[in-house]
Amino acid sequence: MNLESSSDILDRLSVTLASRRNADPAISYTARLFAKGPDAILKKIGEEAAELIMASKDGQTDEIVFEATDVLFHTMMLLVFHGLSIGDVCRELKRREGVSGIEEKKARKAE
Amino acid sequence: MNLESSSDILDRLSVTLASRRNADPAISYTARLFAKGPDAILKKIGEEAAELIMASKDGQTDEIVFEATDVLFHTMMLLVFHGLSIGDVCRELKRREGVSGIEEKKARKAE
Amino acid sequence: MNLESSSDILDRLSVTLASRRNADPAISYTARLFAKGPDAILKKIGEEAAELIMASKDGQTDEIVFEATDVLFHTMMLLVFHGLSIGDVCRELKRREGVSGIEEKKARKAE
Amino acid sequence: MNLESSSDILDRLSVTLASRRNADPAISYTARLFAKGPDAILKKIGEEAAELIMASKDGQTDEIVFEATDVLFHTMMLLVFHGLSIGDVCRELKRREGVSGIEEKKARKAE
Repeated sequence: MNLESSSDILDRLSVTLASRRNADPAISYTARLFAKGPDAILKKIGEEAAELIMASKDGQTDEIVFEATDVLFHTMMLLVFHGLSIGDVCRELKRREGVSGIEEKKARKAE
Repeated sequence: MNLESSSDILDRLSVTLASRRNADPAISYTARLFAKGPDAILKKIGEEAAELIMASKDGQTDEIVFEATDVLFHTMMLLVFHGLSIGDVCRELKRREGVSGIEEKKARKAE
Repeated sequence: MNLESSSDILDRLSVTLASRRNADPAISYTARLFAKGPDAILKKIGEEAAELIMASKDGQTDEIVFEATDVLFHTMMLLVFHGLSIGDVCRELKRREGVSGIEEKKARKAE
Repeated sequence: MNLESSSDILDRLSVTLASRRNADPAISYTARLFAKGPDAILKKIGEEAAELIMASKDGQTDEIVFEATDVLFHTMMLLVFHGLSIGDVCRELKRREGVSGIEEKKARKAE
């Protein structure tokens, strides 16, 4: 039984990431990556997207979850770098849903 | 005040995505993309990652949120294609946190 | 026997691409993509890199050549957009080779 | 005055790369990357494509040439890994040109 929701985890992680934004690079991987600047985060997003594509082709469930986690983690870091958070992304998902269902909105866009 | 947590949206979207996995392609963008097969989803992940990098360089907050949302949305579609969900990714984030803090684990890995 | 060297094709293609830089979008795919602006070219580079990765995983020789060609073609378009050409890239390859062999230079960098 | 054509450089580099395909990893960056296997090359292609996108956004000519060179270099390594070469890519470019001009062919495809 999972009493803690996905969002609890993501929101807590967002807070942790924000606290590492200007922290001593020595304390963690995240603090070090923030200290390197945004280009280092963007490079990781390109690299992790490539690895997610590779994992999907390999079809190994564990690897797919691992690489999707890395994509989400570094996307959340980028959001924090820009003063944003995963909450802003969830609001955008909800907004799309709110208009007329994300499905229908996307469908119209594609036509 | 946001009464609905991020995960409520994410979990609900996961269920919606799963319901489109084998749906009539005519009903929505998502059903159509699933019908095209996994390569079409992977191509979108590469494309959206590129667009997120571009948006970050442009520094437009709205665009960054929009593109990060597209990256997350298509990553969630890929997870659903493989019988997985965003919940699996959140559990992996929690697992990393649980071992010794995601920060510390990553820090050791990078050394 | 290939009487025309690879560069003859590449140099000729570079000249053709440059001639489409500000051409009527109606005349060709390339003129149309240039008219859309650099973001459209960058998006294609992200997309084609993803497709090259997928083709390599699939192991289909024809597909690998096709996608590698698309990566090179759109990289050449980006160079032309910036007033550069494939010749500048080849000069950079030669420069690296000239210093002490591209291999050795890269090897030192990686250590 | 550049007496050596772009193709001379690329063809010579292809031969060098092929000679490193199964070489002692200790001798060079390329031999080491080949020894790591195709996934390491694919990861580099994703990473270098991201860096090329970033360099284009930054608009620094030297960086654009540098990153485009890295994209081409690792694409050539991937071709060699699959028993192919940049010559195959140039033949594909010529084939497209031969049909009715690469421009026209692409234009029809896009319509």
